[in-house]
Amino acid sequence: MPTDSWVNETLYPEWGQRFMVKRELARVQSDFQDIMIFESYTHGRVLMLDGVVQITEADEFVYQEMLAHVPLLAHGDAKRVLIIGAGDGGVLKRVLQHRNVEKAVMVEIDGEVIRLAKEFMPSIAGDAWNDPRAEVLVADGIDYVRKAADGSFDVVIVDSTDPIGVGEVLFTDEFYANVARLLSEKGVIVNQGGVPAMQADELHDTSVRRAKSFSDISAYVVAVPTYVGGFMTLGWSAKDASLRAVDTATIRARAEAAGILGQTQYWTPEIHTGSFNLPPYIAKHLPAKG
Amino acid sequence: MPTDSWVNETLYPEWGQRFMVKRELARVQSDFQDIMIFESYTHGRVLMLDGVVQITEADEFVYQEMLAHVPLLAHGDAKRVLIIGAGDGGVLKRVLQHRNVEKAVMVEIDGEVIRLAKEFMPSIAGDAWNDPRAEVLVADGIDYVRKAADGSFDVVIVDSTDPIGVGEVLFTDEFYANVARLLSEKGVIVNQGGVPAMQADELHDTSVRRAKSFSDISAYVVAVPTYVGGFMTLGWSAKDASLRAVDTATIRARAEAAGILGQTQYWTPEIHTGSFNLPPYIAKHLPAKG
Repeated sequence: MPTDSWVNETLYPEWGQRFMVKRELARVQSDFQDIMIFESYTHGRVLMLDGVVQITEADEFVYQEMLAHVPLLAHGDAKRVLIIGAGDGGVLKRVLQHRNVEKAVMVEIDGEVIRLAKEFMPSIAGDAWNDPRAEVLVADGIDYVRKAADGSFDVVIVDSTDPIGVGEVLFTDEFYANVARLLSEKGVIVNQGGVPAMQADELHDTSVRRAKSFSDISAYVVAVPTYVGGFMTLGWSAKDASLRAVDTATIRARAEAAGILGQTQYWTPEIHTGSFNLPPYIAKHLPAKG
Repeated sequence: MPTDSWVNETLYPEWGQRFMVKRELARVQSDFQDIMIFESYTHGRVLMLDGVVQITEADEFVYQEMLAHVPLLAHGDAKRVLIIGAGDGGVLKRVLQHRNVEKAVMVEIDGEVIRLAKEFMPSIAGDAWNDPRAEVLVADGIDYVRKAADGSFDVVIVDSTDPIGVGEVLFTDEFYANVARLLSEKGVIVNQGGVPAMQADELHDTSVRRAKSFSDISAYVVAVPTYVGGFMTLGWSAKDASLRAVDTATIRARAEAAGILGQTQYWTPEIHTGSFNLPPYIAKHLPAKG
């Protein structure tokens, strides 16, 4: 790609964002997807998969903090965390910031994403790759959850692409049933739930599937600058509805104990609890209760 | 503009959104700005001023609800409301939804925006133009606030473009001093404060100016789908810090009395109070207290 050309995100055929490219750093067709990393003028380095923005250096903290800190602190004593996808390592880094986490297993299907992120976006994961509590597997997440032992994890974080292409199998009934089985009693799984203003069906359809395996289904919101279209939802599926109702003061105390308080740029205890308050235009896409 | 061509927003030179245009409806160079209205495939009709998206039919409720309902319900007894800008009439409509509002004066400098919005985007304002409580003036807002009587309004809403071009004078020291004078004792003014991930200086600089005339300076956040770049801030300047601290239950009771509760698609009492909780990446741009 020539310098100072525009790259258009192709997630939606008739609307989207575009970046002026300062320099292309990598363009690889892996076994799974088209991977591109470029230097932008506005957002630092940008990772795109199949033409869709996954992460930028400038705003990655928004998505990563909300994806990692909300389930871990709502749980309150998460020791074993399973991360599926998230090949850039950003979620792994945030999970390992929690002092009480003893084990974080990351299962990414595309080793090329990990390799390229390490080479061209090393700040995203920082030292997380070398943390003795981290286990990084290049493997199929579907297969991993099928084989995982009952109750072997406290929190599962699915940082996938949209339910199209390689990510589609992470939104099936079988996947959620296996996750419900491998989670401990107070277990919770969060997943990327799309941008309802553009992808309302995504929240609705995945919620219906999640409801088959979990008693407490909801979503929380985050305003990610480069996931354009207003609030993104993060899907919330838990065995215990009390996790979502933990008050702000308790979340604050847990964050302090975990070493998270004051270390974030988007997440705060107030934003944590407030993020479950959905605007009506989003709430209406959740399946009706019971 | 030919059918099915792309229109690029030009707010930021090296990043932005683009729409595929189904049909151009109006393109007018007024005395103040370049006005364009087109039919999109994704967001209904779209109004752009000088190449910057102002409003789309699909998501206008987000911005309008937060700009109108938050100050009016935080005040609790706003009877006289001054709206500056907002030529499409969407803010006027939301203000007049409040039963207790007795007078809403709207001062828009560009009569062409009103004319074109009435013709091509009539659903935005609905019947608001004909409400006997509405007074719509095509006039200079700067001039209007200069001449307005002391204490003659309870709430001022500034729905301007960014502090560039025609909107720039709505962010000056003189403007805020006049607004402070024309507001009643519990008065509050809200203003468009930009998208901090892209325009951090805008929040900082306008806040410093607002602080010269108001004792309580802050901002609240809203995720507007087509104001791309994550949270937009709405500047908050009040004479009385208690307005920002009104609890959720009180806001709910006021909304019910005003006829707002259940009539919104983004605003809720919880989102109202939660919107003052700023992510640290935004809060750091507010001037230090005292």
